Amino acid sequence: MRDIKVPKPTIKRIAMYNRFLTQLKEEGVEKTSSKEIAEALNIKASQVRKDLSYFGEFGKRGVGYNVEKLLSKIHIILGTERVWNVAIIGVGNLGKAISHYPELEKNKFKIVSAFDVDKRKVNSILLPGVVIKHINDLKEDIKKTNFEIAILTVSPSAAQPVTDLLVEAGIKGILNFTPVTLNVNEDVVVENVDFVISLKTLTYEIISKAGRSFEDQSNSEEDRVF
Amino acid sequence: MRDIKVPKPTIKRIAMYNRFLTQLKEEGVEKTSSKEIAEALNIKASQVRKDLSYFGEFGKRGVGYNVEKLLSKIHIILGTERVWNVAIIGVGNLGKAISHYPELEKNKFKIVSAFDVDKRKVNSILLPGVVIKHINDLKEDIKKTNFEIAILTVSPSAAQPVTDLLVEAGIKGILNFTPVTLNVNEDVVVENVDFVISLKTLTYEIISKAGRSFEDQSNSEEDRVF
Repeated sequence: MRDIKVPKPTIKRIAMYNRFLTQLKEEGVEKTSSKEIAEALNIKASQVRKDLSYFGEFGKRGVGYNVEKLLSKIHIILGTERVWNVAIIGVGNLGKAISHYPELEKNKFKIVSAFDVDKRKVNSILLPGVVIKHINDLKEDIKKTNFEIAILTVSPSAAQPVTDLLVEAGIKGILNFTPVTLNVNEDVVVENVDFVISLKTLTYEIISKAGRSFEDQSNSEEDRVF
Repeated sequence: MRDIKVPKPTIKRIAMYNRFLTQLKEEGVEKTSSKEIAEALNIKASQVRKDLSYFGEFGKRGVGYNVEKLLSKIHIILGTERVWNVAIIGVGNLGKAISHYPELEKNKFKIVSAFDVDKRKVNSILLPGVVIKHINDLKEDIKKTNFEIAILTVSPSAAQPVTDLLVEAGIKGILNFTPVTLNVNEDVVVENVDFVISLKTLTYEIISKAGRSFEDQSNSEEDRVF
């Protein structure tokens, strides 16, 4: 088995190139360069070229990229050239907010189903054409609506049991907003979105930056704690 | 200037060790090991040891870690041993959902201010003690409430202008939920949370996995597109 492992940060950046190229396309721009892409994202042009090089040759040296061609190649890389059906699992504040987030539909992620266990929510309308169903109806619903991705916004204690239901029903990927590390079989992909982890990365960077400034001023290496 | 650059994935994992260790501490567990931490997070024990090694020596070989000691060292690394004051900028569905997210307060991120431009929202109560203010009052408010982190949940078109206000007011870090690449000066740290980027990473992984399974079955290298 060959396994070309592309680093995850590369994939995330390629998704950001996708966003920038879509913007250029909407503005009617036909050509771009790794320098222009890099500047828009505050990274280095060499990084853009390196990321793309995992997937073959794009553009010509000194000529740059054709926006539309590069965009459609990136869509093929990411699998976003088609619509993905998505289910919201857990219609609390966060589930509701996400289901109304305009960027989802714009990027061809279509919410086709929503589930909860709260009797007051079940049978009410979340979005045009999307009635909230009870989680017990998940297995039956997935056969009809063919959702492949679940956005998991349940409470921490429900996260693993609901994940087990999703895996059993044949889900392909889970976007996990809960602070729980999910156990799934190897056929299922999990991507975690955890605000608190992001906030802690932020505080780490804030105090590192403060530490470095302090060090620069004092010009001493011994002030560093780590 | 010395600059020990710790990779961002390491910081994110250390924040996850923090979460797991907090759980152990709550359960009254006194000792743990890199093996146990690794298993809880579906990673390798060697990864745990490598991540922690950036910050010195923890625990003893064969003896493991004292949960409370490791936890307090990790808090110092991440800067989470103290409370951080936070402001919500943009009180739409997402801003509201985040402000009611119980994990924030639990992790010592305290929402002290909230801002919007919508007259119907300004002067209404978001949380006990937190009245939504107009964005024009930001500079005055930050002096009183001393928030250091802004959670940015405004519309894409408002993202950069509001960021300029925040930077001018002396913000230290921004958790950016908008799909916009923010321009800030080098004193300000930005951490991006973009659901759509995460969803596209997920679809990439789903189709890669499908591709690999296909390859495994066909036993041919030529079926691979990339």
